[in-house]
Formats: sequence, structure tokens, C-alpha cells
Amino acid sequence: MKLICEKNKLQEAISTSQKAITGKSTMPVLEGLYIEAVNNVLTFIGSDIDLSIETKTQAEVIEPGKIVVDNRIFGEIIRKLPNDKVIIETIDGNIIQISCQKSVFNLVHMNADEYPSVPNINENIVFSINQSILKNMIKGTIFATAQDETRPILQGVLFEVNNKNLNLVALDGYRLAVKSQVIDTDNSINVVIPGKTLSEVSKILEENEEKVNITFTENHILFNLGETKIISRLLEGEFIKYSSLLPQEHKLLVTVNRQELLNGIERASLMAKDGNSNLIKLNIEEDNMVITSNSQLGKVREEVSINLQGESLQIAFNSKYLLDVLKIMEDDEVLLELSSSVTPCVIKNKEIDNCKYLVLPVRLVK
Amino acid sequence: MKLICEKNKLQEAISTSQKAITGKSTMPVLEGLYIEAVNNVLTFIGSDIDLSIETKTQAEVIEPGKIVVDNRIFGEIIRKLPNDKVIIETIDGNIIQISCQKSVFNLVHMNADEYPSVPNINENIVFSINQSILKNMIKGTIFATAQDETRPILQGVLFEVNNKNLNLVALDGYRLAVKSQVIDTDNSINVVIPGKTLSEVSKILEENEEKVNITFTENHILFNLGETKIISRLLEGEFIKYSSLLPQEHKLLVTVNRQELLNGIERASLMAKDGNSNLIKLNIEEDNMVITSNSQLGKVREEVSINLQGESLQIAFNSKYLLDVLKIMEDDEVLLELSSSVTPCVIKNKEIDNCKYLVLPVRLVK
Repeated sequence: MKLICEKNKLQEAISTSQKAITGKSTMPVLEGLYIEAVNNVLTFIGSDIDLSIETKTQAEVIEPGKIVVDNRIFGEIIRKLPNDKVIIETIDGNIIQISCQKSVFNLVHMNADEYPSVPNINENIVFSINQSILKNMIKGTIFATAQDETRPILQGVLFEVNNKNLNLVALDGYRLAVKSQVIDTDNSINVVIPGKTLSEVSKILEENEEKVNITFTENHILFNLGETKIISRLLEGEFIKYSSLLPQEHKLLVTVNRQELLNGIERASLMAKDGNSNLIKLNIEEDNMVITSNSQLGKVREEVSINLQGESLQIAFNSKYLLDVLKIMEDDEVLLELSSSVTPCVIKNKEIDNCKYLVLPVRLVK
Repeated sequence: MKLICEKNKLQEAISTSQKAITGKSTMPVLEGLYIEAVNNVLTFIGSDIDLSIETKTQAEVIEPGKIVVDNRIFGEIIRKLPNDKVIIETIDGNIIQISCQKSVFNLVHMNADEYPSVPNINENIVFSINQSILKNMIKGTIFATAQDETRPILQGVLFEVNNKNLNLVALDGYRLAVKSQVIDTDNSINVVIPGKTLSEVSKILEENEEKVNITFTENHILFNLGETKIISRLLEGEFIKYSSLLPQEHKLLVTVNRQELLNGIERASLMAKDGNSNLIKLNIEEDNMVITSNSQLGKVREEVSINLQGESLQIAFNSKYLLDVLKIMEDDEVLLELSSSVTPCVIKNKEIDNCKYLVLPVRLVK
């Protein structure tokens, strides 16, 4: 193998493909980055079996070939090289030489034949979506995935496509997040994608109007961004029938400035660290919400102006769950739909109807 | 106690004074921030006994008084408040109320009478120096203080004043750092200041021409920045006679671009992580320095253009010690003075004669 490539192009390709490498695999070859050079194209692959990221970049390929290099050290070498053309060539049985200006590195490489093959997916696009929109939908749901491993399915995000609508859904038993987007497809889909995959996908997605094409097979999802393809295994099992969890009606409707509510809850939370319960109480009255909390450190009282339709209500929450939601919402004004102190609170944008959040209250012992 | 003060002023005073609070003290009151309100001035003190930081800010004091509040929670409350006037008042035996717009916090406070008194220093200024210059001198030496506790005196930095010259000196057995500055004083001083103190001092010093006035007593140093005073205990014991460690002559003089040498050594170090020795070899020849390193990962060869006066030489170093020095030096061109592969290397600026660094080589088994 021998090739010449700009340092910046190499660095970008490494940065993208290495996002799949967790270093937790029992196969040493998966700590490596797979590099194939053929027809003036370099293909980089990083993988932890469950998730594979493949990206391509242009290069002058003088002699085709394929190798696997240690991801960490190879990435550091390329990153520290000057901004100039880099020559990479195999010089011995298992050595590659990396040269750039006055720098010459000789690095042991692994055998590319031992690298597991990436699932071969017959690309049959189910839908396309703007990168920035998908990135935003992932950000708006992934925080609500379960962190414990007792119910693996809840560590994923549901991708639900029907009636020309895409819903991303996550829930962990205490809160539920739904983000929705109209898309152009007649297909129906109901699959669960590991949270880890989506976290890496959202780092690679750009804040722009470029499309990402999405294909599903029985066991995999493929995100095709053009130069980069991300392939992930799907989670096995049935997701919870989340729509039955969303209340059909409500008795109170609170309209409130999102940032003011967020600031008030954040300050009240400072006094709610006692025993890690983050307990805050909301006293919802006409025109006014009073937020209180207390612990052995002291107590706090916050007031936020609201518009209330319905009767007044006292209700308590783990402040973390409200803060997570209010931080990632985008509208200036949000709506809180409530019915009683023991039923969930639903939070929506006032203007843009593209999300729905549900948070369970904390029952107070009276 | 009752006072009204702008949130920003409070926040700044907290941020400065809390730098002395380590939370490692056995006295609970030292996890607190001492606040005294009198004559429309607030005085904040943070302390861990060895180091005390006192800072003042203007406020409307309606009722004078003094309290000690938990540093962490009080700092977080003030930081999260809106940018507006904050009212602080004692309302009960041991409660203060903090109000700002629609926020009201009640916080337990401690008894200010239990707070240890700050050493009373009769201010007798020994010298004054620009804040930015002192900040730079600390940065240029503190990295060379010893990290292990076997020789406590080496965890400090020597402040040596004589012949209208201030030298800051640090050494750890492997390298030595000296920064010098002409100052206007006829005094002679030779004291050692704890590295921790200087680290906090350098965070408080601004990048400007404002003066800091420095006073010494038998056991303490006082840095007076105007609104802020920093008082630290001195380290006991004799510092090493460092000037005898600096070679009086040299056989080789290398002139080299600092950034090129830094880049070459940084890249070579990537291959020198084996067994944590960071071993790199320099092959110093006419016009050219070849830097090599190797480990089980592979090997590297770097070339840097130099100007050499003297015979060629092979010498090895722990790359970390060279990098630490080259990163904080400021001249574009630096000088390396060498004599043999087993004697120290002295590094200086080519133009500005205000520092001197010494690094011991690593003896190679032949």
C-alpha cells in the first residue's frame, strides 16, 4: 500500500470513523482503524461490532492495499503532523511508514484480513431527512433513555414511522420524550436504536440542510450521509406502548415563559440536593407559580408569572426531570398540562407542535 | 446584618476569596466564607489557615454585622441570581435571607466569632511589581516545583531579592527554572512560598500594569492588590543553593526555532510512552538536530534545523522536561547550552535574558 493524502483530510476521516471505537471489545483488532486504499479513494472503518462507521476521502493511491492501525496512536500522529501532504506506505511485513515534511514514523500495523466485515446492507432508502433536523430530534429525546441495564430496550430510542410522520421516543420510567417530524415516505417502521449509536450519530450529523438517507433491515439501521455511512444493530424486543402513557385530557393548562421557569427551578434546586432527591414543590395559582424547596441547608421560595386555565394545584417533582426538558426545548413559551398532584405533567411548546414531554410527579406523604 | 449589593460585585468577591478554601481543613468553619459588613464596605475572607484571601467590595450597609456562610452553596446561589440588587440580612439566630427580584433564600449560617483571625501584618512594602509581570514569572517557574512530599521545601518557589533583582526559582531534582526581573528595592530577601499559594495568586493577578505590593514578615508574605490581599505562610527551611547547579561554561551552543523544536519533540514523544520514560534521543550535528524515539509501537525520526557552535553530540532526555520548558518560553529563538551527554542542558531565550532553565539528561546504557 502506498498513498499520498492531505493531513486535514486524514484527520477528518479518522475523527469520524474512530467514534465507533469503544476500546471495550475483546477483539484486539477492533481497537484498530481499518484503512483501505484503492482507485484514489481511502476508506476508513471504525467498529465495535454493534456500531460501525465507514467514511471515505480522496487520496493519491500509488499502490492499493489495506491495513489496520492502532486507532489512538495513529490518530495522535496524524493530528500532530504539519498541515501538508502525508505519505503512508507499507515498508515491511507489518510496518507502515508515515512521512510528512521532516517527520518519519514507523508504526506496527495489524492484519486487515482479521478485521470483521461490516454488515452488507442492500441500500433501500426508507426515508431522507435534513441532518440538522435529525440531530435536533436525537438531542430532544436521548436524554430520557434509561441509564440502568435492567430493561435494555429502554436504553434505546424508538424510531416510529407511520402516516408520513417520524416519531423519536425515549422513556425511562420517570419521564417520556417524543419528538415528531413530517417526512416523505409511505413506509411504516417500528424499531429501537441503541442510545450509544444515536449519541455518535448526532456528533457526526452537521447543522445543515444536507440530507441523511436512512435504510432499515431486519437487524440493522444504515444512516448514509454521503461520504460517511453509519451502521448499527437494532435493539431486540418490543418498545413500550408509549401512546397509552400520554394522558388524553387535562384539568389545568399553564402557559409560562420557558427561561423564567427554568431559572426559577434551577435556583430552587440548589436547596434540593439533600439526599439527592431534588425535590421541589410547585404551588400553581392564578397568574403565579410559587416554587419552594428546603433541606438541612435552608429553604428557598421562587415566584414565576404564569397564565393558568383551571383550578389551582400543588404538585412536587424531581427538579432534574423538569430541567432536562426545559433546557432542550426551543420555544420561548411552553405549556404545562396537569390534572392532579399524582398524575403526570405533559410539557409542550406553545407554538411549534413538534414535541411532547411527560414527567411523573413525586407523591408527597401528607 | 443587613446590606444591599449588586449581584456582580458579590459574585466577583466570592470568586476571589473562595480560591483559598480547600475544603480539606478539619475546622468546619473554614469551609465557610467570612463576610463582614461595615461602613458601606463588605469584606470577604476565605482561608485554609496556610493561605488567606481577603477582598473588599462596596455595598449599602443598612445594619453592620458579620457572618460565615457555606462557601459552595452561597456561591452557587449568588451565581444563579438575576443581574440585580441582592439584599442579604440576618433574620433569626442563625439564618440569613438572600433576596433578589422574586427569589428568596433562607440559609443557615455559622458563627463569625469562631472564624480564625487572619495574621495581622504590619504592611511594610518590600517591593512593588506589575501584576502581569509577576503572573508571568510564576507561570514560568511553578511547573518545576516538586510534586512529591519527600522534600517539602521543593514544593515551594524561592523568592530571592538582591542587587535590585527579583529571582523566582523552582527545582525538583530533574530540572531547574529561574525567572528574573529588575525591581526597585534595596532590600535583600530569601524566602520560599508554597506552590499552592502562588498558583492561586497567579489566578487572581490580572494581565495589566496595575501594581501588586509585596510585604514579608518572618513567617508570612502579603500580596496587596488594592481591593484584595493574599496572605500566605512561608515554607520553613533552607532552599537549595541553586546557583551552584548552573554550569559556568559550555562546549556546544545550539540556536533553534522554539516552535519547530517543540513540534518535533512533541511528535517524537508520541512513540516514547513506553514504560512512561518519555525517552527521546537528540543527535546534534552541524545545521541539524535529529530527534528519535522508539518503543514497541514503532519508531520515529524528526529533523529540526539548528545553528551549532561546537562539536556534534548525542544526548537523551525525558521529553516531558524539555516540553514543559519550551511551552512556557516566549522568544521565537532559544539557545541550548550543552557540554556532554551526562551534564545538564541549559535553555535560555536568544533575545530576552530573563529566564534560565536547566534539564538533566538521561544516561543511556551503552
